[in-house]
Amino acid sequence: MKRVLSGMRPTGKLHLGNYMGALHNWVRLQHEYECYFFIADWHALTTDYADTSQIRPNTREVILDFLGAGLDPAHSVLFVQSDIKQHAELHLLFSMITPLGWLERVPTYKEQQENITGKDLSTYGFLGYPLLQSADILIYQPDFVPVGQDQVAHVELTREVARRFNQFYPGAQGSEILPEPQVLLTPSPKLPGTDGRKMSKSYGNTILLTDPEPVVRQKLKPMVTDPARVRRTDPGNPDVCPVGDLHKVFSSQETLAKVYDGCTTASIGCIECKGWVADSVVKVLQPIQERRAGYEANPKKVDEILEDGKQRATTRAEQTMVEVRSAVGIG
Amino acid sequence: MKRVLSGMRPTGKLHLGNYMGALHNWVRLQHEYECYFFIADWHALTTDYADTSQIRPNTREVILDFLGAGLDPAHSVLFVQSDIKQHAELHLLFSMITPLGWLERVPTYKEQQENITGKDLSTYGFLGYPLLQSADILIYQPDFVPVGQDQVAHVELTREVARRFNQFYPGAQGSEILPEPQVLLTPSPKLPGTDGRKMSKSYGNTILLTDPEPVVRQKLKPMVTDPARVRRTDPGNPDVCPVGDLHKVFSSQETLAKVYDGCTTASIGCIECKGWVADSVVKVLQPIQERRAGYEANPKKVDEILEDGKQRATTRAEQTMVEVRSAVGIG
Repeated sequence: MKRVLSGMRPTGKLHLGNYMGALHNWVRLQHEYECYFFIADWHALTTDYADTSQIRPNTREVILDFLGAGLDPAHSVLFVQSDIKQHAELHLLFSMITPLGWLERVPTYKEQQENITGKDLSTYGFLGYPLLQSADILIYQPDFVPVGQDQVAHVELTREVARRFNQFYPGAQGSEILPEPQVLLTPSPKLPGTDGRKMSKSYGNTILLTDPEPVVRQKLKPMVTDPARVRRTDPGNPDVCPVGDLHKVFSSQETLAKVYDGCTTASIGCIECKGWVADSVVKVLQPIQERRAGYEANPKKVDEILEDGKQRATTRAEQTMVEVRSAVGIG
Repeated sequence: MKRVLSGMRPTGKLHLGNYMGALHNWVRLQHEYECYFFIADWHALTTDYADTSQIRPNTREVILDFLGAGLDPAHSVLFVQSDIKQHAELHLLFSMITPLGWLERVPTYKEQQENITGKDLSTYGFLGYPLLQSADILIYQPDFVPVGQDQVAHVELTREVARRFNQFYPGAQGSEILPEPQVLLTPSPKLPGTDGRKMSKSYGNTILLTDPEPVVRQKLKPMVTDPARVRRTDPGNPDVCPVGDLHKVFSSQETLAKVYDGCTTASIGCIECKGWVADSVVKVLQPIQERRAGYEANPKKVDEILEDGKQRATTRAEQTMVEVRSAVGIG
């Protein structure tokens, strides 16, 4: 069975964008691959070192959302990054062989420094976080890393680090201890938030996996639609409408047909159309919220899942580190 | 009892410069302080990542020299850095709060990059090694760090890192989890090598702690002396003579008096004077070599000492990390 690994920062309660951009795909993968999914709490420090108060509660929300979305501890190893100290050790070893220029040239480095204002990101750890990611990944010797388009450059760096490591430190009979993982590009449908821009926590336009039905309906009601459809009697075009985009992701073929027909002939209004999309979203969220509620009511069970994930991930990571230490000739 | 910590890179068999610049002092300290002394094998990777073959054998030589010099596992915790994974974890946490500029401005950074030619030192780990040192030190919450003048800037950085950490992450009741350690400046007498320059492995002018008597005599015989003393009949000045410097460090008051008298009156020749200094050096080396030979003949004993040091250092480091993780709110 091929191995897959991916992770997510503990940004707090997850939204539909996180779900469609990652979780939904991970849930499918767990039946085809040996899966490791983790919450990258050390990574949260790269931007939130000055106020760490939300990292632990956010980590808890994310694991609940993982479980609610259908990640199944019977099929996946679910763990918290900082529980696996080996990541820090491999990161340190990688730091010794990684040219500064590789990190300075990571596209997100300058970009994020410019975009995230109000935080001082000129730290050693912020420069090095893609290398921590490389350690996070390579320590499980995965075949594939499911990521979105925005993370492809980081996996490419990871592959470069693996090549350099393997070149300096070949294993027994010249074997490669850290095989280069392949990107498994997550199909990411266009998922607008309630203001029509990409759904993102920083825009405040999200629908959370935990939003109850009335909140979902309330958030969707004022959602922007095809700007050309000014009056109820104007025909609209679902292909240039954020609500239409949500329908494409969450609604059935049948509903989608009704939307195209009703919108383009002006036989339905946007209010009605938003009601339908709310129905579809609520239908997707309902089983997620039911599963999540089950885990929320049983925090001990969640602790056990994380403890079990810690044990299994530690065993796997340590297995790699035994090879790594032997090849590097240290530790 | 106040706590002291210091470390040394595994550069191979130690020489008289290492002994007088550090070890000799450490041996005295272990009766006054709770002492931790370690071999910094991860640090060796910062410069030797491309060829790590000597790190393990060199580590072994250094622990034998530690023991030979009189470091006593009954009085000091002797350990190998890479055995204590907590150093890597604390280093990672420090990386998140440390401005890049602090590391770029460490005086040794550009200096060493310029001086060590033939090696590519523009790596992330080379830039970060003073921060790894900070973790090495602070994780034992020591009161004092005995170092030579060349390491004072690194301890100053360590103190800055501690201040920043304590400011972001106060302990219970606002306590400081990582107190700022004080420098304990090791008195470092002038110790020339056989060519008159500072004794240093890179100059190839050393006398090793393991050099047998004939080798010591052979190495000292061609040693440079007061350049003004050209003929046997010229009076010399021990204060401008490398051999005189060695006498000051290793010879008895009585011998030193004979040197001053004989040299300044030209009643002794340099050959005779070198014979005396060889006697003094051999006398210092003899008990060191005897103790070392005892440990060399009993490698299992050395393994046990390192295993015991590993356990004790791990326990102490983990104690700090429990406080650190709680204050940072992670892991």
